[in-house]
Amino acid sequence: MMDEEKIVKDIVSGQIKLYEVEKHVDNDNDKATELRRRAIEKLTGQDLKQIGHHNIDLKQALKANIENCIGVAQIPMGITGPLKVNGNFAKGEYYIPLATTEGALVASVSRGISVINACGGAFAHVLKSGTTRGPVCRVDSLDKAKEVMDWVAKNKKKIKEIAEKTDPFIKFSDIESYLVGKNLFLRITYDTGDAMGMNMVTVASDSVMSFLEDKFKLKHIALSGNMCIDKKPSALNMIKGRGKSVIAEVTIPRELVEKKLKCTPEAFADVCYRKNWVGSGLAGAYGFNSHFGNIVGAMFLATGQDEAHITEGSHGFTTAEVNDDGDLYVAITAPSLMVGTIGGGTMLGTQKEALSMMGCWGPGKTPGANAKTFAEILGSVLLAGELSLLGALAARHLTQAHVRLNR
Amino acid sequence: MMDEEKIVKDIVSGQIKLYEVEKHVDNDNDKATELRRRAIEKLTGQDLKQIGHHNIDLKQALKANIENCIGVAQIPMGITGPLKVNGNFAKGEYYIPLATTEGALVASVSRGISVINACGGAFAHVLKSGTTRGPVCRVDSLDKAKEVMDWVAKNKKKIKEIAEKTDPFIKFSDIESYLVGKNLFLRITYDTGDAMGMNMVTVASDSVMSFLEDKFKLKHIALSGNMCIDKKPSALNMIKGRGKSVIAEVTIPRELVEKKLKCTPEAFADVCYRKNWVGSGLAGAYGFNSHFGNIVGAMFLATGQDEAHITEGSHGFTTAEVNDDGDLYVAITAPSLMVGTIGGGTMLGTQKEALSMMGCWGPGKTPGANAKTFAEILGSVLLAGELSLLGALAARHLTQAHVRLNR
Amino acid sequence: MMDEEKIVKDIVSGQIKLYEVEKHVDNDNDKATELRRRAIEKLTGQDLKQIGHHNIDLKQALKANIENCIGVAQIPMGITGPLKVNGNFAKGEYYIPLATTEGALVASVSRGISVINACGGAFAHVLKSGTTRGPVCRVDSLDKAKEVMDWVAKNKKKIKEIAEKTDPFIKFSDIESYLVGKNLFLRITYDTGDAMGMNMVTVASDSVMSFLEDKFKLKHIALSGNMCIDKKPSALNMIKGRGKSVIAEVTIPRELVEKKLKCTPEAFADVCYRKNWVGSGLAGAYGFNSHFGNIVGAMFLATGQDEAHITEGSHGFTTAEVNDDGDLYVAITAPSLMVGTIGGGTMLGTQKEALSMMGCWGPGKTPGANAKTFAEILGSVLLAGELSLLGALAARHLTQAHVRLNR
Amino acid sequence: MMDEEKIVKDIVSGQIKLYEVEKHVDNDNDKATELRRRAIEKLTGQDLKQIGHHNIDLKQALKANIENCIGVAQIPMGITGPLKVNGNFAKGEYYIPLATTEGALVASVSRGISVINACGGAFAHVLKSGTTRGPVCRVDSLDKAKEVMDWVAKNKKKIKEIAEKTDPFIKFSDIESYLVGKNLFLRITYDTGDAMGMNMVTVASDSVMSFLEDKFKLKHIALSGNMCIDKKPSALNMIKGRGKSVIAEVTIPRELVEKKLKCTPEAFADVCYRKNWVGSGLAGAYGFNSHFGNIVGAMFLATGQDEAHITEGSHGFTTAEVNDDGDLYVAITAPSLMVGTIGGGTMLGTQKEALSMMGCWGPGKTPGANAKTFAEILGSVLLAGELSLLGALAARHLTQAHVRLNR
Repeated sequence: MMDEEKIVKDIVSGQIKLYEVEKHVDNDNDKATELRRRAIEKLTGQDLKQIGHHNIDLKQALKANIENCIGVAQIPMGITGPLKVNGNFAKGEYYIPLATTEGALVASVSRGISVINACGGAFAHVLKSGTTRGPVCRVDSLDKAKEVMDWVAKNKKKIKEIAEKTDPFIKFSDIESYLVGKNLFLRITYDTGDAMGMNMVTVASDSVMSFLEDKFKLKHIALSGNMCIDKKPSALNMIKGRGKSVIAEVTIPRELVEKKLKCTPEAFADVCYRKNWVGSGLAGAYGFNSHFGNIVGAMFLATGQDEAHITEGSHGFTTAEVNDDGDLYVAITAPSLMVGTIGGGTMLGTQKEALSMMGCWGPGKTPGANAKTFAEILGSVLLAGELSLLGALAARHLTQAHVRLNR
Repeated sequence: MMDEEKIVKDIVSGQIKLYEVEKHVDNDNDKATELRRRAIEKLTGQDLKQIGHHNIDLKQALKANIENCIGVAQIPMGITGPLKVNGNFAKGEYYIPLATTEGALVASVSRGISVINACGGAFAHVLKSGTTRGPVCRVDSLDKAKEVMDWVAKNKKKIKEIAEKTDPFIKFSDIESYLVGKNLFLRITYDTGDAMGMNMVTVASDSVMSFLEDKFKLKHIALSGNMCIDKKPSALNMIKGRGKSVIAEVTIPRELVEKKLKCTPEAFADVCYRKNWVGSGLAGAYGFNSHFGNIVGAMFLATGQDEAHITEGSHGFTTAEVNDDGDLYVAITAPSLMVGTIGGGTMLGTQKEALSMMGCWGPGKTPGANAKTFAEILGSVLLAGELSLLGALAARHLTQAHVRLNR
Repeated sequence: MMDEEKIVKDIVSGQIKLYEVEKHVDNDNDKATELRRRAIEKLTGQDLKQIGHHNIDLKQALKANIENCIGVAQIPMGITGPLKVNGNFAKGEYYIPLATTEGALVASVSRGISVINACGGAFAHVLKSGTTRGPVCRVDSLDKAKEVMDWVAKNKKKIKEIAEKTDPFIKFSDIESYLVGKNLFLRITYDTGDAMGMNMVTVASDSVMSFLEDKFKLKHIALSGNMCIDKKPSALNMIKGRGKSVIAEVTIPRELVEKKLKCTPEAFADVCYRKNWVGSGLAGAYGFNSHFGNIVGAMFLATGQDEAHITEGSHGFTTAEVNDDGDLYVAITAPSLMVGTIGGGTMLGTQKEALSMMGCWGPGKTPGANAKTFAEILGSVLLAGELSLLGALAARHLTQAHVRLNR
Repeated sequence: MMDEEKIVKDIVSGQIKLYEVEKHVDNDNDKATELRRRAIEKLTGQDLKQIGHHNIDLKQALKANIENCIGVAQIPMGITGPLKVNGNFAKGEYYIPLATTEGALVASVSRGISVINACGGAFAHVLKSGTTRGPVCRVDSLDKAKEVMDWVAKNKKKIKEIAEKTDPFIKFSDIESYLVGKNLFLRITYDTGDAMGMNMVTVASDSVMSFLEDKFKLKHIALSGNMCIDKKPSALNMIKGRGKSVIAEVTIPRELVEKKLKCTPEAFADVCYRKNWVGSGLAGAYGFNSHFGNIVGAMFLATGQDEAHITEGSHGFTTAEVNDDGDLYVAITAPSLMVGTIGGGTMLGTQKEALSMMGCWGPGKTPGANAKTFAEILGSVLLAGELSLLGALAARHLTQAHVRLNR
């Protein structure tokens, strides 16, 4: 078609900017995406056929998830399970979708799941739930800062009112203040129901800050002053938690350890201690675990969570100990899982299917029920991942497994 | 087809395990993937049409990237650029693929790029390059440990020989030892050319450890003792670096700051200081930056990097200062970018296209040249991301931008 | 005296153990100390005349501060000030005793004080006050742990009652619970008035734990499970504070900076930023300051604080910025000053004199008033120390000053 | 004496400044100290008799250790031992001086020593030795920074030459460079023989920096850019070590554990794991130990080490495990003990006596031999301290012991 060629040419020449394509095609997102891709093919001399192959709802995606779209990255999705979970919210057997490019990961998780199932399932529980924003403003003096901090401590009800006016689904939980020189940091925690909620809490916190800045003549610095703290490794989130803080545990009879993990409970606990605790301690790590990052990563990609939150998901603890009767007890504590089952990437096709597969897409029956279900499942999969890798290490299988599956 | 229905039924009933499907269909990966997906649809009552829509080379993927495949996660890919980079390896203008589900991210990076380009491009440089493994073994006494540590310090040539025998592309760089009680940790660093190289270094380290364990009668504990440290937040990687350590910088004339970022150099530097340094310091963070995680995440997904390495990529530093002549200088230091341009996820269709678009897929002209090119581009995009977000904060645009683009 | 010689001989031969000397001399602590010293002189061939020279009340000391006493370490004490403090509790001018062996330290603090005084004094404030214990017990299952955590969250009144029964001066403030596998950590915070209070909180926490362990059949592990966390560097205390959290600030007119600190406000703020924030950030430090440790150390030794708490005192933040009108604003935030004005080392002669010199020995008019006075003074001295060292660095005086004063 | 009264009066009135007293009494340090003290007594209305009671060599002290002296802090010194050490340098039995005001500490260490001795002594070893300075300078561009970093990496011999010209006793070991934006940090490591050496390395580093700044036209920022890192808690020193890095270990037969520590090897190892590793890990601590700070503190005060270095001494690791034959193995790794046996506080009377008692005051037979002897002894005392406290916790004795000894 003449017109299309012309548009592609104009993109190539720079007459039409990458973000302007939509308006030249009557906001037809599919067409715009195609033309943009064709222009990039010309500009880079690279065929982008696979990137162009998808059936995503671009109208939806371009409204909320992406700009300048040219197609998709196809990340292979494997399936494993069913995994038996005994949670407060997750109760039953779940098939687990994992999107990853790391060979051996799905197989590894599967092995862990088979151990958990043989023990009757994982116990899982959401210890805490809260999404945070940590704005920073400048106060002119210590006296002024004291005044603000005192007021904030005593007027949480007023702040709650301001925050909750911004969104019917947000619930204010708490506000803390921290003072470093003239820098007054607030850390505001909200319950955001089934949504991961970063946008909601940003809007609510903006409203709170506008109020406080007006009232006390504070100088606004940033809505995020990194005391949230978002998408960065930190002791703060490890200690206080962010998003969902989840614990999952299983007790594995000795003979099962020997049969399925090919090691003894003692060897397993020993590897866990020396690697996850001594090694991580020596490294100044906030991850006292084996590979939370892998499991969080693969489940986040499959289900439309924000990939940058993999960072926070990789924080946390794995403990293993031999019970008095000789069985093996293993648990994970994941303090900072930023997950949601509605909004953001969860609205996209494949991601929605993946969440739906576990029965937890969308708003829960009670607010937050689906997100907590998902968090408990995720915690249980983390446990499966740890079981498998630590078992493999204990049985000195790591290298061989990788070579076989990955080369 | 009769057979297919039967296989699906058998998967559903558990007669055929999820990983056994291939052998019932003559190792036809496409067919196996389809049948597995159909079985999961039945098992979960969830249609998985979109997950099934892809044109990935499953034969390749199932060999190296995934097990129990049922299809793909489609992650929207946006494009931005061209970004001008003046690196040691990356020289020229690059279109940047970003796969993400976070609305506003591509737009945000685009804004940063336009600032960088208006300044003649970003300067970028790979300060260090090295992939590490940190095995741990048990020594029976301090005397024995001293003997091993001394030997290791004096026989690096021998260790190099052993390590390099395992792979023609691996180059041994260094080995360090750390002793905590009976736990002897080694941290071995290798140059792995254009590959991210975790599998290579695992195999090489296994060989080194086998040798040492035999020679000194050490007890093997784990090939990874978390002093690597892989996919966990840590001071170790922040300080010593892992993968590529990259720095990128730009100097922005004052009038450009005002015009494009709608703030002053002073306001920009002020936000950077209070948020990235004071806020992150107070949070006990290893990320003194604004949102490395977002950019690393989106480029990793687009180009087939390991998503769990987003954790390490989120470590690092952003500095901003006003020069004597009133212009704004901004730089990022990213100590731990675990990237490759060959192997792993880079071999998949869309990922390969994305890397090729930047001219850096596959082995470089000299070993490592493509990976370093990619690292310098990534560093420059990190810089663009920081410019845009810090600028937006400085101009108090954050909320509004998010609301407009993301709702 | 015959008897004495015999006792010395018996100590030397091992007939009398070091801790048994008292009972051979009718519990005369001075005599026992002398004989023990004489025995050690014989055993080591080293004259200990100076160690033996003191006028400490050994009866008091041997009851509460030391065992097997042989005399004292004499730590030189310098004096500086008066320092003008505008605090909530500390109001007025204070002479500051500093016990140290580090040449140049008193001189350095004096310089800082003269700057503060020239500005009308330091503003200081205790942001938080609370001494913590963090016991750990073992729970047998996640279900049990949930039960305990829920109960604890809902029955703080009961816990308060149990805790406060142990001591008339202790006030329970809060209890938090953290779960990692089977390890249930509690962190209990108390107000301990003018005492530093570690012994009080240990006793109170023991009572709380005994109750909880009985009620829920928990397995006691340790009264201190390192979530206190006592005398170790930690993000926990940096973020949440322990003991007194103090802030102190001063605004210094530009001409005064130039005259007294021989540098510009800009140079001062620049050094503070690059050293205390960028340098410390890169080092993975919990001390974003220049030398809190020196000042905390010297004041702790002079006033009988626990020297091991110097560790926690060295955590914290120094910020410097140039105000809009060109003046220099400098502040310190010290989150974790474990101080008291009664009990422990404060009961000894020289230490009591040193505290009394500042008018804050013993119990305050209202409980805690003296300890808070001391904390505000200490915060102001920290500020003086930072002013001086940062100023010296900015004026590139460090080496010269050290060489002149210390060699 | 008339004159004296006049001088005191003039100090009180401010005519004579605190640091000017010496010149009014012909530099008679004893007299000046006395008059200053008398003036302070008048100014504060507080008798300072005990502070004035000492026999310190004030001439020496006022030259190198203190300014504005008014007397001393008397810190009670207890003695324990002899402790049997099997080190590389420390070989034999040592009486251990501990200066502290914390009741129960000497008794606690004594108990640990008796356990160690019953096992034939502690094995101890200095793993590393090196004092560091971390200057920071500003470079104008990445290109320039690369040039400097390359030059530094290739010209260590030249730098060694420059550094060693400043002092006959200093030996340059290594220099590393770190770049964050325009901030170029160097970390220079030296062997300073038997001296702790901070002054030596400051002078040497100043010389190196002057050279580099001239050669490359760098802007000097600070001789200490906190990448030393001195007297602050940090992952850097925990991981890489500073001063002496020491390990000490002991294996305790099961029956001895039961008899002397009143617990089982299993209970001991269990408490060590849950408290020192899980608790400290959760707290974001750099101290995976029980109370290094106490022991380091008491030995530092007794022997004239810099009290601010207690912070670094409190970093480190304690591990405990049950051997295959059921015995208990316990070890400490203390990465950062900043100690010396000559210079600084070690030149003062009581401190010199305390070091001499262990036969390690002054310069060693070979350079550094005495400092290493002392470090190995200190490591062994740390081990004793951990044995005792962990044993007490395991036997649930903590509260009782404190109450009995300390009240």
